[in-house]
Amino acid sequence: MVYLNETHDPSLQSWVASANVAENGFPIQNLPFSVFRIAGSSQAFRPGVAIGDQALDLAALARIQPFTGIAQEALDACQATQLNALMALGQAHWSALRLELSRALRTDSSLQSTLEPMLHNQSDLEFALPAHIGDYTDFYISLHHATAIGKQFRPDNPLLPNYKWVPIGYHGRASSIGVSGQAFARPVGQTRPGAEDGTPGFGPCERLDFELELGIFVGQGNDLGERIPITEAESHVFGLCILNDWSARDLQAWEYQPLGPFLAKNFASTISPWIVTLEALAPFRTAFQRNADDPQPMPYLTSDDNKAAGAFDIGLDVLLSTQQSRADNAEPALLCRSNFKEAYWSIAQLLTHHTVNGCNLQPGDLLGTGTLSGPDQGQEGSLLELNQGGKEPVKLPWGEERLFLQDNDEVVLRAKCSKPGYPTISLGECAGTVLPAKF
Amino acid sequence: MVYLNETHDPSLQSWVASANVAENGFPIQNLPFSVFRIAGSSQAFRPGVAIGDQALDLAALARIQPFTGIAQEALDACQATQLNALMALGQAHWSALRLELSRALRTDSSLQSTLEPMLHNQSDLEFALPAHIGDYTDFYISLHHATAIGKQFRPDNPLLPNYKWVPIGYHGRASSIGVSGQAFARPVGQTRPGAEDGTPGFGPCERLDFELELGIFVGQGNDLGERIPITEAESHVFGLCILNDWSARDLQAWEYQPLGPFLAKNFASTISPWIVTLEALAPFRTAFQRNADDPQPMPYLTSDDNKAAGAFDIGLDVLLSTQQSRADNAEPALLCRSNFKEAYWSIAQLLTHHTVNGCNLQPGDLLGTGTLSGPDQGQEGSLLELNQGGKEPVKLPWGEERLFLQDNDEVVLRAKCSKPGYPTISLGECAGTVLPAKF
Repeated sequence: MVYLNETHDPSLQSWVASANVAENGFPIQNLPFSVFRIAGSSQAFRPGVAIGDQALDLAALARIQPFTGIAQEALDACQATQLNALMALGQAHWSALRLELSRALRTDSSLQSTLEPMLHNQSDLEFALPAHIGDYTDFYISLHHATAIGKQFRPDNPLLPNYKWVPIGYHGRASSIGVSGQAFARPVGQTRPGAEDGTPGFGPCERLDFELELGIFVGQGNDLGERIPITEAESHVFGLCILNDWSARDLQAWEYQPLGPFLAKNFASTISPWIVTLEALAPFRTAFQRNADDPQPMPYLTSDDNKAAGAFDIGLDVLLSTQQSRADNAEPALLCRSNFKEAYWSIAQLLTHHTVNGCNLQPGDLLGTGTLSGPDQGQEGSLLELNQGGKEPVKLPWGEERLFLQDNDEVVLRAKCSKPGYPTISLGECAGTVLPAKF
Repeated sequence: MVYLNETHDPSLQSWVASANVAENGFPIQNLPFSVFRIAGSSQAFRPGVAIGDQALDLAALARIQPFTGIAQEALDACQATQLNALMALGQAHWSALRLELSRALRTDSSLQSTLEPMLHNQSDLEFALPAHIGDYTDFYISLHHATAIGKQFRPDNPLLPNYKWVPIGYHGRASSIGVSGQAFARPVGQTRPGAEDGTPGFGPCERLDFELELGIFVGQGNDLGERIPITEAESHVFGLCILNDWSARDLQAWEYQPLGPFLAKNFASTISPWIVTLEALAPFRTAFQRNADDPQPMPYLTSDDNKAAGAFDIGLDVLLSTQQSRADNAEPALLCRSNFKEAYWSIAQLLTHHTVNGCNLQPGDLLGTGTLSGPDQGQEGSLLELNQGGKEPVKLPWGEERLFLQDNDEVVLRAKCSKPGYPTISLGECAGTVLPAKF
């Protein structure tokens, strides 16, 4: 699964000028997928690929049949309102389509004049969920996050004994996943009883948090009863997006035993509109960095490829703006700068573990990584870590402070891959805003 | 929501003779919905309603437009391969359709000759999932089950402090839900390390169990950010089915902390094909029986209707057959006889709690009740309770015994409502078979 081909040539330039601007994030080496329409219109959503500050309409392109073979088959699957049909085709198709799109968008392509009318300014567009998400699973793959959260509940024993053996995951709610720009009312619910009368509290959440995650979109699935071996797992992944797994900590603390988080999470989850394929991320593969005393993963979770290049170097930022900061025209505050390469489990290990019991994955299923905190200060991917369990408010540059999110706070997650000699590959951004509780 | 109308008249008889046979379970007062096709055919599945040992093809009926108004609108929604469109229409539509179907199937209906060609022997049919299940949530509403299981983990403190306040629930896996007759391979996975070297076990599950549950199909949903008040909650319920939430106890014990069950549950869940509407169950409403020292539910979970008639008297049986018992032509063993009326939380409370934070439900979503154990011996809805935590094998009448399920064991769950002077209302049965592990 570790491959580089002509689409990764860092010297490639596009006839779409904005794609060649350093740090644009959507150069011709990226080519992420979304579904879009003209903002405010009643058009059907259709698949698109990003190139610079433009998006190419893949449904329109499909109609003129510019490609042949499996590349054209993949393009034909883009005549739909979501990407599930494309996802179901598998890696050979995605790769063939990427190659043809790369060639068609390169400087001096003979298709330039044909494609130009199919481009839209991204700033004129609105986006929808890129796929129908049949099932959403959230994992817990940052050892640093698990340890920091565990310390708050069990100071003497922060990490549970299963953590380094089992890629811990649980099922989340698919229906309440929205796309970047999502605004949602502060959730309401029960909270732990106070000392007085033993009656639980009830009202708007007072400990609302973000969680910095990546989302993994499943491409081809597996039949019920079959499993996906570790050596094949990455070929079942269509690509990655950014995910904010909003969390109501006070609801969670009261409800989560013995069956896990429920209303603390299922009021909203937000993903970025663009899905960056694993093929686009290949130049940023890196080895896993485990400690010498960590156990070897069990055989079903082990492969040489996975050890050598199963991690991805993806930089992650969390930014916060508030009603006051926006009124003051202050820049958003950078709350956290982390990296996906710090994760304890790989993407391949998540898919293989998820299916080892025969559970069937389907095209468009979403797997969340869990909060991607790093080991150091400033790398905490949630307020619950930044505020040390609700004890130390985070000071914001414009004079406010935050223990947890206030109404009208906007959280923006960003993700990108950077290294010398290669264009920046961006996953775009995932923005969401907390509205006041309705009740 | 407590209503009885002419469709509940116990003296009604059908021109379908088998519907009038005592104990048939599908009398004209029932009229449950499924989707079916001729077994082994490549026909599209279509909605049907049960009447005696027959099923009426509602897609065929819709084409001749026999009804008017909202009854016909509801029937038109049955020209589909699943029931989601009918579910989305809401209670007034379901009730109007039920009334017209009741009239059309009654003795001396003028529609008899029209409908006769649209009837099929149920024994000639195969069934599919009646709806596309967008999200599946499993609750935990039997105090008796929660206490029995809790005792095994925490002998001194079996019931967690949130139990009598919060209808505990968690998200399950929608993709692996199958319909009665489902056969699945024994799941494989990690188990708790032995005392020796601290390395987890890995292999086929050795503690495979059933869980006796009912499933609640959501009809009309709610928008994200809105909630369903307790007084309106039942009008969002299309009906009930039987659910077997198969559970791998050894996988569960090792993986479930801190985020809940995952691979221990998501390899398979099985539901009965027929959905019995709440309207059909209305004659079996009953008051909640709480202990005097149980706390009053919080105000958002309280309504007079719910207290007076929010429970349903539905008898539940678990039967087991094995390879040996079938070879011996022995009757299946009755492992458990329980009743839904013993549940601690009502259907209305589950929907209202699920949406109190703004979580959106959608037509076709499935809510499981959790294992419906009763207070007494013989009412335990899982082997883990019957065998007292894996200590006392269950003796079977033909000489075998079971701690947990063996390969080729078949578990059949049955549910029906009975009372003097009213025809038996059956929910049918939910059968599933354990196949040997594949790996």
